[in-house]
This record gives sequence, structure tokens and C-alpha cells, in this order.
Amino acid sequence: MIVKGKHYRTIWLSKDGWSVNIINQVALPHKFIIEKLKTLKDAAEAISQMKVRGAPLIGVTAAYGICLALRKETSDTSISSAAEVLLRTRPTAVNLQWAVAKMLAFIKKIPESNHEERIRVAYSSASKICEKDVIACRKIGKYGLKLIRSIYRTNNKDTINILTHCNAGWLAAVDYGTALAPIYAAHEDGLPVHVWVDETRPRNQGASLTAWELGQQGIPHTVIVDNAGGHLMQKGEVDLCITGTDRTTSNGDVCNKIGTYLKALAAKDTNTPFYVALPGSTIDWSMKNGIKQVPIEERNSEEVTHIEGYTKDGSFSKVRLTPKKSFAANPAFDITPAKLVTALITDRGVCEAKRSSLRSLYKR
Amino acid sequence: MIVKGKHYRTIWLSKDGWSVNIINQVALPHKFIIEKLKTLKDAAEAISQMKVRGAPLIGVTAAYGICLALRKETSDTSISSAAEVLLRTRPTAVNLQWAVAKMLAFIKKIPESNHEERIRVAYSSASKICEKDVIACRKIGKYGLKLIRSIYRTNNKDTINILTHCNAGWLAAVDYGTALAPIYAAHEDGLPVHVWVDETRPRNQGASLTAWELGQQGIPHTVIVDNAGGHLMQKGEVDLCITGTDRTTSNGDVCNKIGTYLKALAAKDTNTPFYVALPGSTIDWSMKNGIKQVPIEERNSEEVTHIEGYTKDGSFSKVRLTPKKSFAANPAFDITPAKLVTALITDRGVCEAKRSSLRSLYKR
Repeated sequence: MIVKGKHYRTIWLSKDGWSVNIINQVALPHKFIIEKLKTLKDAAEAISQMKVRGAPLIGVTAAYGICLALRKETSDTSISSAAEVLLRTRPTAVNLQWAVAKMLAFIKKIPESNHEERIRVAYSSASKICEKDVIACRKIGKYGLKLIRSIYRTNNKDTINILTHCNAGWLAAVDYGTALAPIYAAHEDGLPVHVWVDETRPRNQGASLTAWELGQQGIPHTVIVDNAGGHLMQKGEVDLCITGTDRTTSNGDVCNKIGTYLKALAAKDTNTPFYVALPGSTIDWSMKNGIKQVPIEERNSEEVTHIEGYTKDGSFSKVRLTPKKSFAANPAFDITPAKLVTALITDRGVCEAKRSSLRSLYKR
Repeated sequence: MIVKGKHYRTIWLSKDGWSVNIINQVALPHKFIIEKLKTLKDAAEAISQMKVRGAPLIGVTAAYGICLALRKETSDTSISSAAEVLLRTRPTAVNLQWAVAKMLAFIKKIPESNHEERIRVAYSSASKICEKDVIACRKIGKYGLKLIRSIYRTNNKDTINILTHCNAGWLAAVDYGTALAPIYAAHEDGLPVHVWVDETRPRNQGASLTAWELGQQGIPHTVIVDNAGGHLMQKGEVDLCITGTDRTTSNGDVCNKIGTYLKALAAKDTNTPFYVALPGSTIDWSMKNGIKQVPIEERNSEEVTHIEGYTKDGSFSKVRLTPKKSFAANPAFDITPAKLVTALITDRGVCEAKRSSLRSLYKR
């Protein structure tokens, strides 16, 4: 997508042909910083420190992490230990496990002795995962556009108002994004889109990342606190919701950024369509009950008690929000039960949030 | 309630017998500052700048604002214009209108020529409103305690976990509070209470005020972002919710701080009891449909785009959270429909959130 008029992806190979460039998303929206990953450790830290985040992008970064590890040592043992390091970074997004498993399967087909070939296959596999993600996101955009267009025509208002939670835009993927792909497609198509951007405490990926990327593409949007979406739906100011997902169980339960569940409840209560956009890599076929089975990452409580922002004089400052002695808890994801999801927008088409419908798109 | 071991109310008459002391709640939890109100303008600004906030306390402050205006000029015209100034400060909490109307009724009984008596009656009426609020809150505590005790016994767990949104503690009233009064009563009663404190963006009254006052009383609590409550309820970690209200319509719809509706939806979906605590002064008998009728205050968008906190070096700092060019919207309240409210905890007992039940407690 576009940053200051120039096309970017969130991750790309350097001109040297082996190191990997990323956009450091921790510095957004205040600063646009490109960083180079040169080692497995760099890749793992980029994920754990959330310089890169978003289920698809975590997967792609892990794939390149495997490549960087291989440049040092190509043995099976080394690859397995690299995989372990990467899998430990974040527990919830299933794309990470999916991408690492794919990489290992590709690489282990090549004899351990054939170092150069292993490295070559690793890079070409990572690149394939990357390109496939781009294609998947474009398809999500295409299928989602049809839904948006249809709702726009039915509602017959000047603007079509779409609420989204967290960031499932191109910054969460390689390009286009998942939840935002239909919005970009609708905007390109000339539909008068306006986006309600949930701030998404505690890490504010909505206020910082979604608002920033929508602004860069020139899409009208308004930031709101996470508390406000239900009120806007009650007032008829939301025509539909679209969010991403970090893991979708086979029965259609959606694990996504904490607070998604609350918006889905409000959507149900106010008859607002609630869509979840996802590439197939986000489906966890091994699970069929989100609330019971998906591991929910519990993050550092300082993300709740403190917040960082940009001061008037142009520096970053971290401030404390809570009393010194108060504890905080910080679960990072929640489960939106399938019953609250109007439909899933996948890279293979739109389907109901249930096993049989998902299986009709993703055959065994 | 207790601050650093000493008993305080949120508002009290100075030793001079006419000026009014308040706790400047904007500085909490980082600094405990007492301020003196000497004029109508001081009182109006204390309300509009949210140095005092919370439906009951806004009402009491407005009552004293009328007293301060009278010290300057006791004519009917002057009182009416003072009332107008106060009514303009905040639109949503009905207690403000209620308290001002009460004051005017008391004062206008005294002939316009009898300056001294008008002032005396004003102060004694304000003091009565104040004392009545304290008594109402204690009663809410007493009735709410019974509910908490009963749920504690039924659930039979080590701890009873109560979720609250915003601040409806003693800081929102004169003493004890509304939503927190039952919690204080339960704690005094020896019940093992733990409170989940919703941060309550954008002004963070939960993270700053509720956490602070619970800490001062030694009540175990954990601050969470507003997004987290639904997840905790899904996981069975919330035994009940209690919130306050800024206006309750005669049919039992509850207008309260933005985001309350979302918690009530999650409570309904997870079979978690959802209680709303209120003194009679919060009931608006003239309205019977919250969503259609209650005016929702739209506050400055800078409350969303910026946040103030305390830096490591002990100073206040305001930081920007959003991209420079992104707009923000800031509705301050939402409506929780009566259907989502398990019961209302009033100063006259617990009742269903419906007109006939409210009328059985508050006769015409």
C-alpha cells in the first residue's frame, strides 16, 4: 500500500538478497522507520516486541526467520531449534505455527548435507508464503467488496459506515490486509466509505496503525474509544463491522484482539452485520471450541498501567495512568462465538461461520 | 471515605461557613489536591472541567453553586441566571437538573426582599441534599450487600469478583458512592471481594479514580482495559457487575458512561448478573425510552486523541496517541436497555428495571 505516495509492503527482501526489511510498527503513527532483520534473533524479537504484528505478518516474518537461521546452520537440529524460538514468541495467532510448519516441511525434503539448496528452498518458500498472503488478501478484498456494495445499495445512505477493531490492515499482513482489504477495494471502487476506528486498548493498534494506514490511503475515518462502538450501532451509525482474526476454530469461533467479542455482541443486538475476514492460514482445524481451546496470551500489565505517545515537543513519552499500587491484568485476545458472526470473508469466498461451510471452501 | 487514613467527603463547607471545598479529581490518582470554590463561576467550572464529576456529586456541587451565586445577589433573576449557567455545564446527568430545581423551589418560597433568609435557606437546602445523598448511598450499600452475600454463598468460591465500569464510588457522590457502596459494605462485612476495574476510556475514571479509592480503602482490585471484561466473563472470572447511572428512564433504561452497554451485553450472554446502583434522584420520570430520549454529551475529541499521565520524573505529560490528521469522535454516555439489567439497587431497595417496579418503590 501507499506511504507518503510510495508503494510499500510490510516485509521485503533487501537488495543484498538475504536480509529482510520490515516497517517498525511500534514507532507508528509518529515515525516511519524501516529496520533490517539479519538474524533469527532479530526476527524473533521483531515478533515478540511487536515491531511486526498481525496474524499473517507474524507468519511471514517467522518464515523469513527460518531463512535467517539457515544462513548460519542448515542441520535439522538447527532448524528445529529455530522453529522453537519462533513458536515461543506469540502463542495465539495460528499463522505462526502454520508458516513454521510449512517451512520445515519444505526444507526437510532437501538432504541435510545440501546446505546451499536448503537455503535456496527456504528463501523461495518464504517468498511463496509472502506472495500467497498478498493474493489471499486481494481475494478477501474482492469478496468483501461485494458485501459492502450490497449493504450500501440496501441502506441507501450518503455514506457507508464500517467499524473495525484493532488493525487487520496491510500492516497486519504483507499488503492490502484482511479486514481492511474489502474497505480498500470499496474505496477504489468509488463507494463513499467511512471507517470507525476502534482505538483498541491497551496497545492502540487502531488509533495508531489503522488510523495511520487509512490516512495514507486517503480514506475518511474517525477514531473512537473502544467503549463507543455499541452506542454508535444503537444510533444506526454503523452499517457493518469487519474485523480480522488470529485464529478461527473449525466451528467458526473467532479468536481476535481483546474486545472484538463486545463489538460482535452489540452488532447482534442492533442487527448490524458482523463480518470476520481471514485467509485460510488462520483456520485451526484441530480446534472446535474457541472459548475452551484457544490459548489466550496474557501480556505485560505495564501495557495497561502505562501508555506511550508523542509529546508536543516531538519526543516519545511514557506516562503512568493508574495508581502506583494498583495491579493490572492484560489478556490480549478474546473469543467471538460463531453465533455472533454474520459471515466469514475468506480468500475462497464468503461463508457461514460453521464447520460445514468452511469445509465446503477448504476441502481436506 | 478514607484518604491516607483520614476521613473525607468529596465536598464540604469551609470553616468560614460559606466557601466550599472539593477534591480536584482531575489530579487523581497522582496528586491529592483540595480546592476552594468561592463563586458561581468556580462551581460551574469545577463541574465542566470535571474537577467534580459523577451524577450525585454534580448535583450537590450545583446546589452549592446556587448558594455561592446568592451571596452576590439574591433576586429571582439572579437565581434563574445562576441556574442556567449550572445547567449548561453537563447535559446528561439528570441529578444536576434535579438539584437545581430543588434549590430554586426552596429559595423562591422566601420573599425576594429577604436577602439573608434566602442565603440561609440556600445553604441549609444544599446541606440537606448533601446529607440525603450520603444516606441514600449507605442504603444502596446495605441493599447491595445482601445481593453480593447471596451470590457469594451460591457460587461458593474463595473470592467474589465484581466488575465495575467508570467511577461510581464515593468520588462520584458525597460519600460511599453508588455502585461501590455495596462493595464497601461487603468488604466491611468481611466478604472476600475483588474488583475488576474497567479503565474507562477516554477519561480513565476507572483506572484513575476507582482504582485509587479502592486502594485507599484497602480493597483488592485489578485494573483492566475496557476491552477485557467480556473475556473475563466468558472465563467465569466475574461473579457480578455493578455500575452507576447518570440517568435512569422510568422504564428502567440506564444511561451511564460510554461502554456500559457493552459490558451489560456480555453479562447477558454469559449469565453474569448485571446490577445498576442509583439514588432516586437519578430517575428521570419524564422519559421512557433511553436510546431515543436521553441527550448524550459529545465531548472534546482531544480526550480521545491525547492522554495525560504521570511521567517517571514526577510531572504530568500529555501525549498524542493518533496520527495528526485523524479525526476522533467522543460520545460520553450510552444506553443500557432495561432488558439487560438484572436489577436496580436503589436507596429504597432492589427492584426490576421496569416502570411498575420503580413506581412501587418511588410512589408519586
